[in-house]
Amino acid sequence: MTTQRIAAILRAGEPDETVTVQGWVRTKRELKEFAFVEVNDGSAMANLQVVINSDLPDFENVLKQLNTGASLEVSGVLVASPAKGQRIELKASQVQVYGDADPQTYPLQKKRHSFEFLRTIAHLRPRTNTHGAVFRVRNACSAAVHQFFQERGFLWVHTPIIAASDCEGAGEMFAVTNFDLKNVPRTDSQEVDYAKDFFGKRAYLTVSGQLEAEVMAMAFGNVYTFGPTFRAENSNTSRHLAEFWMIEPEMAFCDLQGDMDLAEAFLKYIFKYVLEHCPEDMEFFNERIDKTVLATAENIINNQFERITYTEAIALLEKADKKFDFPVSWGLDLQSEHERYLAEDLFKKPTIVSDYPVGIKAFYMRLNEDEKTVRAMDVLAPNIGEIIGGSQREERLDVLERRMEAQGMNKEELWWYLDLRRYGTVPHAGFGLGFERLVQFMTGMGNIRDVIPFPRAPLSIDF
Amino acid sequence: MTTQRIAAILRAGEPDETVTVQGWVRTKRELKEFAFVEVNDGSAMANLQVVINSDLPDFENVLKQLNTGASLEVSGVLVASPAKGQRIELKASQVQVYGDADPQTYPLQKKRHSFEFLRTIAHLRPRTNTHGAVFRVRNACSAAVHQFFQERGFLWVHTPIIAASDCEGAGEMFAVTNFDLKNVPRTDSQEVDYAKDFFGKRAYLTVSGQLEAEVMAMAFGNVYTFGPTFRAENSNTSRHLAEFWMIEPEMAFCDLQGDMDLAEAFLKYIFKYVLEHCPEDMEFFNERIDKTVLATAENIINNQFERITYTEAIALLEKADKKFDFPVSWGLDLQSEHERYLAEDLFKKPTIVSDYPVGIKAFYMRLNEDEKTVRAMDVLAPNIGEIIGGSQREERLDVLERRMEAQGMNKEELWWYLDLRRYGTVPHAGFGLGFERLVQFMTGMGNIRDVIPFPRAPLSIDF
Repeated sequence: MTTQRIAAILRAGEPDETVTVQGWVRTKRELKEFAFVEVNDGSAMANLQVVINSDLPDFENVLKQLNTGASLEVSGVLVASPAKGQRIELKASQVQVYGDADPQTYPLQKKRHSFEFLRTIAHLRPRTNTHGAVFRVRNACSAAVHQFFQERGFLWVHTPIIAASDCEGAGEMFAVTNFDLKNVPRTDSQEVDYAKDFFGKRAYLTVSGQLEAEVMAMAFGNVYTFGPTFRAENSNTSRHLAEFWMIEPEMAFCDLQGDMDLAEAFLKYIFKYVLEHCPEDMEFFNERIDKTVLATAENIINNQFERITYTEAIALLEKADKKFDFPVSWGLDLQSEHERYLAEDLFKKPTIVSDYPVGIKAFYMRLNEDEKTVRAMDVLAPNIGEIIGGSQREERLDVLERRMEAQGMNKEELWWYLDLRRYGTVPHAGFGLGFERLVQFMTGMGNIRDVIPFPRAPLSIDF
Repeated sequence: MTTQRIAAILRAGEPDETVTVQGWVRTKRELKEFAFVEVNDGSAMANLQVVINSDLPDFENVLKQLNTGASLEVSGVLVASPAKGQRIELKASQVQVYGDADPQTYPLQKKRHSFEFLRTIAHLRPRTNTHGAVFRVRNACSAAVHQFFQERGFLWVHTPIIAASDCEGAGEMFAVTNFDLKNVPRTDSQEVDYAKDFFGKRAYLTVSGQLEAEVMAMAFGNVYTFGPTFRAENSNTSRHLAEFWMIEPEMAFCDLQGDMDLAEAFLKYIFKYVLEHCPEDMEFFNERIDKTVLATAENIINNQFERITYTEAIALLEKADKKFDFPVSWGLDLQSEHERYLAEDLFKKPTIVSDYPVGIKAFYMRLNEDEKTVRAMDVLAPNIGEIIGGSQREERLDVLERRMEAQGMNKEELWWYLDLRRYGTVPHAGFGLGFERLVQFMTGMGNIRDVIPFPRAPLSIDF
């Protein structure tokens, strides 16, 4: 008699089968001759209904402990359920209570709790329906990411978390130090004496693994990162985290066209995988959280993505019979309202915009022959907005140096990055995707803090 | 005519097949009428030999550029190879050079380089035979980890990297701050005013995700972490990194026996997966790096692990006809020489030692009835030493509080961890495994800095 997960029992359990399940009580309903206890073990959104007869030894005492949140092990026989909405239930022959949960103090009683409140008990919220579904979907997303890349021969590479420099200029970085902050060493000229710190120089938490991923692509062809990245931005919004996971594939011998092809195949694959692996959870989100969730997923899976250049996009926006809050003009970055107009109103499907003005994009993006645009691309999805940003990288040493000089960057610091262009340089491309944004968009959850187990944000570091 | 990876061509390419390959020159040999160029694309240890006839357009100019390290694309027809040790070679009909590599300055010329030297060019060393093999094996290990757990229904959970407290007392931690270190804010009493920092309190880089993984196990049953962890120890050894990846499974409704079963199944699975997926790389390590590598892997895969208690281990060590440098006495921790004696000399196979003295183990390990030992276990492997450490966790609130008090720990800080014992507590267990140690042991690489792309250690943060 081995223990079984409730998901498997609900899917394939047959009457007369003897099973043991272990989990936590969601609700209890007491009648005269017996009691119904709904048990959840985290393997599925649905509970298994356990029927406990009053002839069970120690019935009253056992029942008294089986409050919401209590943990138990139940052995018994499966029987066809007369109740609506469930195929099967478990007739208990043996019940062991492991731990109770005082109804007076256990915060997760059966009622609606706001997501704000649940954030204050992040150690218990995984036991709710919504967060159970969120973290199962999050896991399915993760598994899909690895499977997608491994099937295609990409190597997972672990780029460093502690970084020596803000190479990308991607935003404010957290400092990492071993100094006693009460007594920071100074040089003779009263500057901070970083030579005395653990690494012998300033150290930060990384904002991206891209540059190091390029190193690995120059040896293995196709690689990807999937790891934590950081921003010390003081943004208290529903779309920002100080610590989040990022996925960054990088491909040697690849141009922007190949990069777009990968991004499109990737998104289709992930959404399909999650629909297949978490159908009940996704239905739950569609019903309770955001009624467009399933339609958006189907849209991404079933449509060939539209591909237009930034210059074409500007022309379309200028022609639009819609009033925008932000001005539309060649050279300015696209705002969220512009991106949504393109993907939602105009094309009604995922849209890849490419070849942005050089002035609004990063130094490492490949300069086009016109010298005015770079080989960048953003993937915009209906109801989602920008979900992926990528580019073909500048592989020509002289052009890259020129771009760095124009931006006042320190070439010495990136000597190794420039070496990649000195020795066996090749056309290459990649993209980046914030993992929590992906999970947020997939589930329709309004606040990004509700799709990561323990969110990190300004003044928020509990647990 | 699609591009093919060299690994696939060497394995399954047939004469007369037309292919295109892309990669980097390893060596070039010029004869009168033709030249041999060995091309590697990172998909395999072996190179594809490309034969370039002198009737190729622009032959001399192309050849001049094809120095070690240069990147190229070659199209042509596969032919059976008359050369020893290779089944097939590529007769070039078209060659495009993407980037050259000046033989005067390119550091990776065909000769032996010391691992010390290669560490100074970590951006180029993935292009060497040894590091190519290391990072392919590392990727296979990673993929195996996910596959093992996903097959068994474990959820991958992302525990926080930035942590609020040194809960485990596992060693020195890096501080994470947004302060200007030249001007750290002070309180009236001249203490550092952490309330003014980004998170409003002291923040560190995590040393373990275990406590948060326990939270997730209390909702989903079986979970695992696979993420970076940190130690600010000033250890300049071949076994220590300041930043390394760790794997930590955690299982609800599981005791120490189940924990040992998982650890044994896990190790067998990973070693088997890598032998199957990277046979040539593993042969290379066995031949060039450490002649015991394959025997150790077979030993782990084919033997049922020995299981003894710490108390039994002490008795065996006291009886041993071997002189140890460190004393053997009940209550003292086992030293490396003791562990190796047990696994290598005595049992000659992986050995799990359990139930260590309470005084030498962490506060969260479950106290045995004897009150002298805890339900801890270490897996010791021949030629490897300790590779896994785990325990059944203390699920009883009163005992856990007593242990924390005895160690002078702050219970307020871990209120949420104690809540897990207040509400629906269950027996649970897990273990931890340093990923780089695993890769190091699997490959026989002597220095842990050579199995991670960009090692972080005291005074070492380049790239």
